[in-house]
Amino acid sequence: MSYTASVVGGSGFTGGELLRVLSGHPEFEVVQATSRSRTNKTVGHAHPNLRHLDLRFSDPEDLESVDVLFAATPHGVSMGEIDRFREAATTVVDLSADFRLDSEAGYEEWYDGHERPELLAESVYALPELNREALPGAELVAAGGCNATATILGLMPLVEEGVLTDDDRVVVDVKVGSSEGGAGGGEAAAHPERSGVVRPYAPTGHRHEAEIEQFLGLDVSFTVHAVDMTRGASATCHVFPGEPVSKGDLWGAYRGAYEAEPFVELVAGGGGVYRYPEPKAVAGTNRAEVGFELDPSNGRVVCFAAIDNMLKGSAGQAVHAANLALGIEETAGLDFRGLHPVGAP
Amino acid sequence: MSYTASVVGGSGFTGGELLRVLSGHPEFEVVQATSRSRTNKTVGHAHPNLRHLDLRFSDPEDLESVDVLFAATPHGVSMGEIDRFREAATTVVDLSADFRLDSEAGYEEWYDGHERPELLAESVYALPELNREALPGAELVAAGGCNATATILGLMPLVEEGVLTDDDRVVVDVKVGSSEGGAGGGEAAAHPERSGVVRPYAPTGHRHEAEIEQFLGLDVSFTVHAVDMTRGASATCHVFPGEPVSKGDLWGAYRGAYEAEPFVELVAGGGGVYRYPEPKAVAGTNRAEVGFELDPSNGRVVCFAAIDNMLKGSAGQAVHAANLALGIEETAGLDFRGLHPVGAP
Amino acid sequence: MSYTASVVGGSGFTGGELLRVLSGHPEFEVVQATSRSRTNKTVGHAHPNLRHLDLRFSDPEDLESVDVLFAATPHGVSMGEIDRFREAATTVVDLSADFRLDSEAGYEEWYDGHERPELLAESVYALPELNREALPGAELVAAGGCNATATILGLMPLVEEGVLTDDDRVVVDVKVGSSEGGAGGGEAAAHPERSGVVRPYAPTGHRHEAEIEQFLGLDVSFTVHAVDMTRGASATCHVFPGEPVSKGDLWGAYRGAYEAEPFVELVAGGGGVYRYPEPKAVAGTNRAEVGFELDPSNGRVVCFAAIDNMLKGSAGQAVHAANLALGIEETAGLDFRGLHPVGAP
Amino acid sequence: MSYTASVVGGSGFTGGELLRVLSGHPEFEVVQATSRSRTNKTVGHAHPNLRHLDLRFSDPEDLESVDVLFAATPHGVSMGEIDRFREAATTVVDLSADFRLDSEAGYEEWYDGHERPELLAESVYALPELNREALPGAELVAAGGCNATATILGLMPLVEEGVLTDDDRVVVDVKVGSSEGGAGGGEAAAHPERSGVVRPYAPTGHRHEAEIEQFLGLDVSFTVHAVDMTRGASATCHVFPGEPVSKGDLWGAYRGAYEAEPFVELVAGGGGVYRYPEPKAVAGTNRAEVGFELDPSNGRVVCFAAIDNMLKGSAGQAVHAANLALGIEETAGLDFRGLHPVGAP
Repeated sequence: MSYTASVVGGSGFTGGELLRVLSGHPEFEVVQATSRSRTNKTVGHAHPNLRHLDLRFSDPEDLESVDVLFAATPHGVSMGEIDRFREAATTVVDLSADFRLDSEAGYEEWYDGHERPELLAESVYALPELNREALPGAELVAAGGCNATATILGLMPLVEEGVLTDDDRVVVDVKVGSSEGGAGGGEAAAHPERSGVVRPYAPTGHRHEAEIEQFLGLDVSFTVHAVDMTRGASATCHVFPGEPVSKGDLWGAYRGAYEAEPFVELVAGGGGVYRYPEPKAVAGTNRAEVGFELDPSNGRVVCFAAIDNMLKGSAGQAVHAANLALGIEETAGLDFRGLHPVGAP
Repeated sequence: MSYTASVVGGSGFTGGELLRVLSGHPEFEVVQATSRSRTNKTVGHAHPNLRHLDLRFSDPEDLESVDVLFAATPHGVSMGEIDRFREAATTVVDLSADFRLDSEAGYEEWYDGHERPELLAESVYALPELNREALPGAELVAAGGCNATATILGLMPLVEEGVLTDDDRVVVDVKVGSSEGGAGGGEAAAHPERSGVVRPYAPTGHRHEAEIEQFLGLDVSFTVHAVDMTRGASATCHVFPGEPVSKGDLWGAYRGAYEAEPFVELVAGGGGVYRYPEPKAVAGTNRAEVGFELDPSNGRVVCFAAIDNMLKGSAGQAVHAANLALGIEETAGLDFRGLHPVGAP
Repeated sequence: MSYTASVVGGSGFTGGELLRVLSGHPEFEVVQATSRSRTNKTVGHAHPNLRHLDLRFSDPEDLESVDVLFAATPHGVSMGEIDRFREAATTVVDLSADFRLDSEAGYEEWYDGHERPELLAESVYALPELNREALPGAELVAAGGCNATATILGLMPLVEEGVLTDDDRVVVDVKVGSSEGGAGGGEAAAHPERSGVVRPYAPTGHRHEAEIEQFLGLDVSFTVHAVDMTRGASATCHVFPGEPVSKGDLWGAYRGAYEAEPFVELVAGGGGVYRYPEPKAVAGTNRAEVGFELDPSNGRVVCFAAIDNMLKGSAGQAVHAANLALGIEETAGLDFRGLHPVGAP
Repeated sequence: MSYTASVVGGSGFTGGELLRVLSGHPEFEVVQATSRSRTNKTVGHAHPNLRHLDLRFSDPEDLESVDVLFAATPHGVSMGEIDRFREAATTVVDLSADFRLDSEAGYEEWYDGHERPELLAESVYALPELNREALPGAELVAAGGCNATATILGLMPLVEEGVLTDDDRVVVDVKVGSSEGGAGGGEAAAHPERSGVVRPYAPTGHRHEAEIEQFLGLDVSFTVHAVDMTRGASATCHVFPGEPVSKGDLWGAYRGAYEAEPFVELVAGGGGVYRYPEPKAVAGTNRAEVGFELDPSNGRVVCFAAIDNMLKGSAGQAVHAANLALGIEETAGLDFRGLHPVGAP
């Protein structure tokens, strides 16, 4: 194994996924996982799938020197700790929102004040399908938000092909699983309340709009519903092109954007039970399914992207970006293909 | 009990709900339930919650004379049987799509040819919130489609108040449960495949658009997703008003439309866990929860309506309409308020 | 309405079910619901299905005088408040474990010390199928534990008929829903952790054993698993009779015990999809389904009882007992029959 | 890659799992997958997680020559096709029940007549924890039944240590997911009916008893419930030892049996949310979690084993056995560790 890695915030959900992926990665050795609440407990105490790992959580105050530090801490933590992180590691991959936006003003509009605005220009957004060329050699990487990732993957080909311009009204309706709320949760996350919901948890004003706007140059009408699954994010985007488009145009746009992408699969109305992108079909993987349909009655394009919010939408994207940053084979450690059948993973 | 009733197609899901509601209704006596596949079996054989009923399915060829016949047969059956139905009963309430539309052309556009187009003008659409004044004395009533019902309830106040005109682009994203596919189902409805999905089952072209267009005068961009619940339909409507509206305008519009309605409750951003319409909060009931939110960034109105697809969206609506047609207290038999907590009902 | 009622601890799950049942009960008027954490909020704030009720939670320190006070407080509270409760109401129905056992020694073995042991002899266990004759006129009623209720209903006919004696080894495996953990819950109750489990949450030593032992005179080998539903308790009891029994003997025993019971239904291997007791078939109701099967290979009797843990296992049983205590028609307010199909309610 | 493999019956659930595992296996090249119903369709048509594979189902009549043929056909098929299978492949691994039992009489007791009884003595039961020494060089391997596998893994250490003898009464209560019913399913498997059940689907007489009896020498009292998950089997075994045992004895027995086993993990009452074996913690893996608890009140041992029914209980066990039969590293292709959190996989 060529690189050492640590995970700060290892007892949370995305921290656990980082540990799982990195411990099976051919090029990384995990040398530290921190957790304030579970210091000295085994990582299996938090994550039953990692009981075989001989690793205990350590205090986040004592960071070991590593090649790559992955920070899976709540929003607002990394910006305060970033100097310690960068002292401990050459490459820092942050999974929070702290370094995703490139302007202080944008950050202040959607979050609170930023403690280290000068780093916003330096940090590199992790999503390789959007940003591959910027990743090699990057030393501060910001993994994207899960809902933003799904939306960007669904809309990007239409923007790139000029089908969608900023004059168009785009409605995005994202359905997400309960892991998005993170470990802990409160009353609303308790199983009796959360089971079976179709809960409009962010009818308007979801912060991931900021990333979508920044990277696609679009103001989207964005709504997020919580539905009954644990992992998964599925974005349905309703687009009204200025000029009529054909199915062939759409195939061209999406194939052009994703044909060479190892983690994106086009699923657009073929046979079988799964005719469009489906989050449960990508659960546990770093894959995205992307697809589309054309509404002949009014020219609307409906496009879909389904991901695992904790992987392609967070920890998997982080490792993918780290692979690219370090020059490792980009799919390394991320080859799990998912299960069938699978219930509500 | 003042009226006799029969249920044709009593072994299906909405047939079972009709039997449940009517058998607890103070003014109806159920004298017949038919089922071709379960003739002579008890109704409890199909519906475990009705094991206490001393009633066996009879052959649909032998219809008894009743005051009201409820037809819960697949689309296309009622139009062929309608003369027999009307011979057997003074009032026929049909739960299929056969008599929902008012023009033959509309029917042909969305379905196949209609066998009895002359009845389309006579039949009365059941939804009382839309059509209360037309129901007293009606002899042929057509219960609405579940997804159409949710959408109409969500948008109607905006149309009535002129917030929404037919020049506006309206996106409707409906999430539905598996009972919508009816008893039987095929490979896609099997539990291992259907569990946990966020399946775009009708990205475009769903037939319920026809009802929405007919009653609201709107062309909506309509998409339906199947999510992991058994009963429930939740419509999220994205509306871009021509003129800016305020929260107060919206409260005025929705209160004006629904204040006097016994089965509609406004749920729009209050406290607690359930801040917007939630299908599981109305499961098992004839209630609709309706709510809205205003997107300050672009003036978009997001409105929501949640119903139980088998009740407010079908059997409950049918009984509600029959109550009004016959001059019975309109809430009779429909007073169940739903459960809390409840999982994915 | 003939009687006034109050619910102490009205914001919890069983408190909400009490409010729902009592507010639809022909003989009760709910005049007070208390909640320490939600004082002055509407009951709809906690229970979305009760948004229509014009009732706000009040401080539990200020109890109004009523005919019946239902206490839905955590274990250990009622015994300290019982004098206040009895001062406020002629009849007190307690849903906690505080007054279920009839001896101080039994209480101390399974719980902690009892503050008012002299009341244990006075209190009446609520389960009417076991205890109907003791309920009329009772002034202190203790609703049973949900898992105990299911188990007692499953085994009682075998004990009464002498099929099962205390020399026999009885294994009881109960599966329960997440509402059993109550509102709040902790990390283990959060949706991502709780979904989909088959969790042996009480492999041994569950306190409900005490009730089973007290009322059936049996030492059972008792194990409870948490499975993926919100409401429901299903007891599977494995019994090895000393003398061989036939199917006919079993039918005789169960019919004898339950034929006249309005809330118990025998479901033992008939046709259709639901051949044995099924908790989802009784969800939302005060009904119990009870059934059995005989293992020809070794004479084992497997008997089943399925209930809604919050109703027949708690709030419904409490109202049923109150009806009997006050001489009201025993099914009053409890006539909801449940839904079909229904998912995981 | 050293060996070629084919999967007969590749469009079913365990066929799909075989294809998934084998296509990621370092030593196998999948050269053929057959399906009668989907001939010429891509494997991704049946299994959305395998859309990347460039492989189409072929007609089962035309078998290619391979090193190992895996048969995932319904019970009763392999015994009729076995000569063709063995002609096509040196090693045949059968996932059906056809070759699990070692006597014709046993087969006839639990199934129907056997067409090729002379092969029963030759076939080798696949479960390596039970049968490792018999597998190297085996040419006809029978993968075990999922419920039998879970039960055998749970009880085997107690049998080996003499804690459990055939004079003891053993009750086994298994909870299983819907994939156990296979692709297709009927009315009872449809999502609206199957969701949320605690269905006693085999109260008595489940055929997997035959395997348990054969390999452990025990008559168990065996009951299987269907619960709401797609994949998973969890066996809870209630054992009453003739002589008292201590926790230390149990740890000794289970450690002795499984310490060296790469796919068995002991989970017996430690900290965290997952204190006992949990099927969702092993979903997607070939792992088994095994644990136990001691009931101090009556000396009962409650032991648990949780597996993924399609992997450790079928396809994973088959590949594990094939690895051993061919002398490949036994964990090859089976290193996926599972996910956390995960819902109801």
